[in-house]
Amino acid sequence: MISEEPILDTIKSRPASNANTGRPATRLDLARIQAAKEQISPEFRDTPQFVCPPLSDLLRCELVIKLETANPIRSFKGRGTEVLASRIAQNFGPQAAVCASAGNLGQALAYSGRRRGIEITVIAGSSANATKIDRIRQLGATVELVEGDIEDARTRAREIADGGGAFLVEDSENLDTCEGAGTIGLELLDKFDGIDAVLLALGGGALATGVGHVFKSMAPMTEVVCIQPKGAPAMALSWHARSIVTTESTDTIADGVAGRFPILVALNDLLAVADHVPLVEEASIVEGMRMLYRHAGLIVEPSAALGIAAILEDPSRFRDKRVVSVICGSNVLPEAFIKWLHG
Amino acid sequence: MISEEPILDTIKSRPASNANTGRPATRLDLARIQAAKEQISPEFRDTPQFVCPPLSDLLRCELVIKLETANPIRSFKGRGTEVLASRIAQNFGPQAAVCASAGNLGQALAYSGRRRGIEITVIAGSSANATKIDRIRQLGATVELVEGDIEDARTRAREIADGGGAFLVEDSENLDTCEGAGTIGLELLDKFDGIDAVLLALGGGALATGVGHVFKSMAPMTEVVCIQPKGAPAMALSWHARSIVTTESTDTIADGVAGRFPILVALNDLLAVADHVPLVEEASIVEGMRMLYRHAGLIVEPSAALGIAAILEDPSRFRDKRVVSVICGSNVLPEAFIKWLHG
Repeated sequence: MISEEPILDTIKSRPASNANTGRPATRLDLARIQAAKEQISPEFRDTPQFVCPPLSDLLRCELVIKLETANPIRSFKGRGTEVLASRIAQNFGPQAAVCASAGNLGQALAYSGRRRGIEITVIAGSSANATKIDRIRQLGATVELVEGDIEDARTRAREIADGGGAFLVEDSENLDTCEGAGTIGLELLDKFDGIDAVLLALGGGALATGVGHVFKSMAPMTEVVCIQPKGAPAMALSWHARSIVTTESTDTIADGVAGRFPILVALNDLLAVADHVPLVEEASIVEGMRMLYRHAGLIVEPSAALGIAAILEDPSRFRDKRVVSVICGSNVLPEAFIKWLHG
Repeated sequence: MISEEPILDTIKSRPASNANTGRPATRLDLARIQAAKEQISPEFRDTPQFVCPPLSDLLRCELVIKLETANPIRSFKGRGTEVLASRIAQNFGPQAAVCASAGNLGQALAYSGRRRGIEITVIAGSSANATKIDRIRQLGATVELVEGDIEDARTRAREIADGGGAFLVEDSENLDTCEGAGTIGLELLDKFDGIDAVLLALGGGALATGVGHVFKSMAPMTEVVCIQPKGAPAMALSWHARSIVTTESTDTIADGVAGRFPILVALNDLLAVADHVPLVEEASIVEGMRMLYRHAGLIVEPSAALGIAAILEDPSRFRDKRVVSVICGSNVLPEAFIKWLHG
């Protein structure tokens, strides 16, 4: 299933180490992330962050929940699209943007675009879920369906952008998406001292590199743990290989992180900030969702349970530590959620 | 089932109207509520408040969700117990407190007490749910079970307090609980203009009078709607009768608001701030829980669905209006929740 494609660019373009820290340099910059915070509408900022007593007892660590689902689009992606849309609105370029998404990014971009009069087009694969597509349309975006999966949709989005007239939003490649996500890290460090580990879902990389960069800049002793499902491991394998690894398919319920073609610049950033990149089983993801439902009263999408899954699979690593799990989204279909709960 | 007990004190002690507004005076004071905010730990403050697009479409109003469930104890009651525990800790009196509760207040008081070294005792009826009792114990409080329901537990709590050594916390009678809840109103008015109606679960009255007072002081045109289930209508009937009405029993899934003996001073405050006090059917509460689950991704306890239930039963009242629903708690047993979802 997995095909390795070592790309020459990987080595060529990987930035040199930062002389002060010994870590490779990243595209990310703390001052820009701090500035990004001001561009994000309040409904996406200063999200709940609290120790969850029942889960802390069960998981035998001090579990801090950082909740990114209590907003109009039910995921953290609004942070990035707010920054992006603010910057588009401030420029003289086209007041239009296009992205490929079957869910969270599409909803977020539609929401942030509409607030600023930016025309949004979202490209989705033909198998994308009808409810999620409806939500994107209800938020005022044009949706175009293409044959194939998210990677085919990305190809079509690039075509539209190349035709002129629309700004191409590539999640994780576009720095705004990483900087917006990075503001999560600022909020955590504003409140909590001595965080031993921060657990981040790893998909394209925006969440992991944005938050990871803030921690490596401001709290370098915190272990930055970026988690992918075994069924969609392209970015994790790339991090371990230190060069791009692609996969022919994905097989996971965690659709929010299921890409096949990692982006080189995002991998380079990830190499600079991630300390540990585990792959977890589907059963652990489901168990994580169940625990968050039962003991924290939260509905989460599978990618938001990757952190709990990582603790379940490697409990000794986190035992008695202060561990933050970023709950990145709750866009899950009610029927599917109930089915997973019942097993 | 319902026995009216017009109590002479009702008339005698109801405060005179406020000369400036024509409304009866309340025990509440805006400056004290503003001061209360500083005493509340950040995990209970500045909670999510946002327009929910899917529910706005379905309910045909602009529905603002104010979410009080994303904190360590999963309800708004931490606001009041934080204020209360701060004031106890600042005094020279006993560093101990007792309350009657089968759930939310007990968890909240245990949490706020432990943080400040205050010894907490919680009295619960013998039929109280074991999971909720466990949570209270895990938070460090002593739990004592008594035969009977919440009103019997209240009697026992008063006995303990009368014996000396512990401060009696009577939800809604104790002003701290109302002032803490009132800070929800300050946060809403800090962000939203032109709120047409605010929907509040009505139990003992702390949430309704606290938030209601802030609105009547700062945004008097907002309709303050306080909702009870038909199966536990004592406070609503009292408001309509303008004197205390008690009931012999309660029959509702909304255990968080199911009292039988309204407190006179809380009723007087409610008379001063509530504009509309509807009673809703159990079926509407269940439908409200389903809609919040399905379209907002939220797990809520039945009392937190009273606002949606009120819209469902009287849609024309709220049509095209800006309506806030305070989602006051999510302490619901997983098994019961799933059962309600399936109908």
